[in-house]
Amino acid sequence: MTDVATAFVPGHVTGFFTTERDDDPTKAGSRGGGIALDDGVEVTVRPADETAISLDGVDLEMGAVERVLDALEATATVSGETDLPLGAGFGVSGAMALGTALATSEAFDRPLSENELVTIAHGAEVQAGTGLGDVVGQARGGMPLRLEPGGPQHNYIDAIPERTRVEYYVIDELSTEDVLSGDTHTLSTAGQRALSRVVGEPTLSSFMRASRQFAREAELLTPDVREVVMDVADAGGEASMAMLGETVFAPGRGLTDAGYDAQVTSVHPGGATLLE
Amino acid sequence: MTDVATAFVPGHVTGFFTTERDDDPTKAGSRGGGIALDDGVEVTVRPADETAISLDGVDLEMGAVERVLDALEATATVSGETDLPLGAGFGVSGAMALGTALATSEAFDRPLSENELVTIAHGAEVQAGTGLGDVVGQARGGMPLRLEPGGPQHNYIDAIPERTRVEYYVIDELSTEDVLSGDTHTLSTAGQRALSRVVGEPTLSSFMRASRQFAREAELLTPDVREVVMDVADAGGEASMAMLGETVFAPGRGLTDAGYDAQVTSVHPGGATLLE
Repeated sequence: MTDVATAFVPGHVTGFFTTERDDDPTKAGSRGGGIALDDGVEVTVRPADETAISLDGVDLEMGAVERVLDALEATATVSGETDLPLGAGFGVSGAMALGTALATSEAFDRPLSENELVTIAHGAEVQAGTGLGDVVGQARGGMPLRLEPGGPQHNYIDAIPERTRVEYYVIDELSTEDVLSGDTHTLSTAGQRALSRVVGEPTLSSFMRASRQFAREAELLTPDVREVVMDVADAGGEASMAMLGETVFAPGRGLTDAGYDAQVTSVHPGGATLLE
Repeated sequence: MTDVATAFVPGHVTGFFTTERDDDPTKAGSRGGGIALDDGVEVTVRPADETAISLDGVDLEMGAVERVLDALEATATVSGETDLPLGAGFGVSGAMALGTALATSEAFDRPLSENELVTIAHGAEVQAGTGLGDVVGQARGGMPLRLEPGGPQHNYIDAIPERTRVEYYVIDELSTEDVLSGDTHTLSTAGQRALSRVVGEPTLSSFMRASRQFAREAELLTPDVREVVMDVADAGGEASMAMLGETVFAPGRGLTDAGYDAQVTSVHPGGATLLE
């Protein structure tokens, strides 16, 4: 036990995805596409006598974080600081898991590689049922396209090379666990179709179009989200729904131009990293 | 032809490497380990009637950059701006190739994915004979460990998760082409040994130790570099040689503490990216 350590993990909105089950959590996960965001989570790990987890000063339980600490045989306080809301589709739980893995390896002197730490965080998130693809997207950064599921030893990730300002507008929470524990056949079929489209034309605008089609085909679009997405389109912009939250995201000034009081961030080009 | 575009590519010092030949330049390359640096190259691509390449305002020929433009069917001026010296082991030619690929895809509206653009730049650099592993290391960022050679469709990259201040001190140039065109058997054996050591203990200090052993075993250490490395060790630090340049790099304040007037940069956690 050496020190306190802090990691930054970008937020991650998913535009479309599939669910890929496997008994091995390092092979399970999802295919899909998303955007890593400058708005992210700073995760600080301090060795302690008892494990305690907090987000913006509020104590909470997070199965994925506890599993990461167990895997690294560490007892610690884990404190997350973020501008992002929990449960709104920004991958905050994945960010907490991945940030915990990176910062714990540093604070507790566990000499593991990046891919090993990402694997631990990904497996923990899958087993906790709180996410399938955020962790590996957050490890990559940019606009990741997850072509093969699982952790870094099994997956294959490409990316759309564009960068842009991104706006988002949160209406309400959705439970990732509820959606993932239901029937996901329709969702996965729609997700695979969306991914194929974007692979054929890896651009921001094809990503936005595929995301909207996915939200409809997967029957995840809520009436309130639909309303906002249509308002953005009427104002000449493009928007879609963050999976899984009742949240609308739009590149550029889409939401502002439609009159919404949106949060502003950007594509975060790099992946998760320790802070010096 | 839409616009001018600019990409940032981190510098990359290689600590140890192997050479892996293959008739297919997307499979050829090297295994090894390096450090991506905040000091990098900003590459601006402008559509033009004739292709012209410059670095810090000086016109020059760069085979890898020309090959990238050919592959993307683009005629352009390519202007690099950097604080890094050319030919001193910082992957400036790789950065120019990769930055050209990213910025050309944006400026000329070529809808290719990140991995496709990295593949083009990597293949161009291999065919030009100016580098084997810089491009894929620069695409990843951080402290990349290249476990399998080639472009993104064939390689496998892990990384050391640490971040640190990095100092460097340039003595003279070395020609990558001269070394790579000679007998590389001893070099590759030493490179594989160094990589195995660091995979077993993926830390900064094991990386520095393996890099020094590689420089000696591969018989690339010059007397002047050896002198500086020993001075740093005498001052309580760690240093090694940037492959391939007559350049010494050291984490932390190693060179400063030994009395050298060193350049200061840091591990760059993210990979190459378009600038907004």
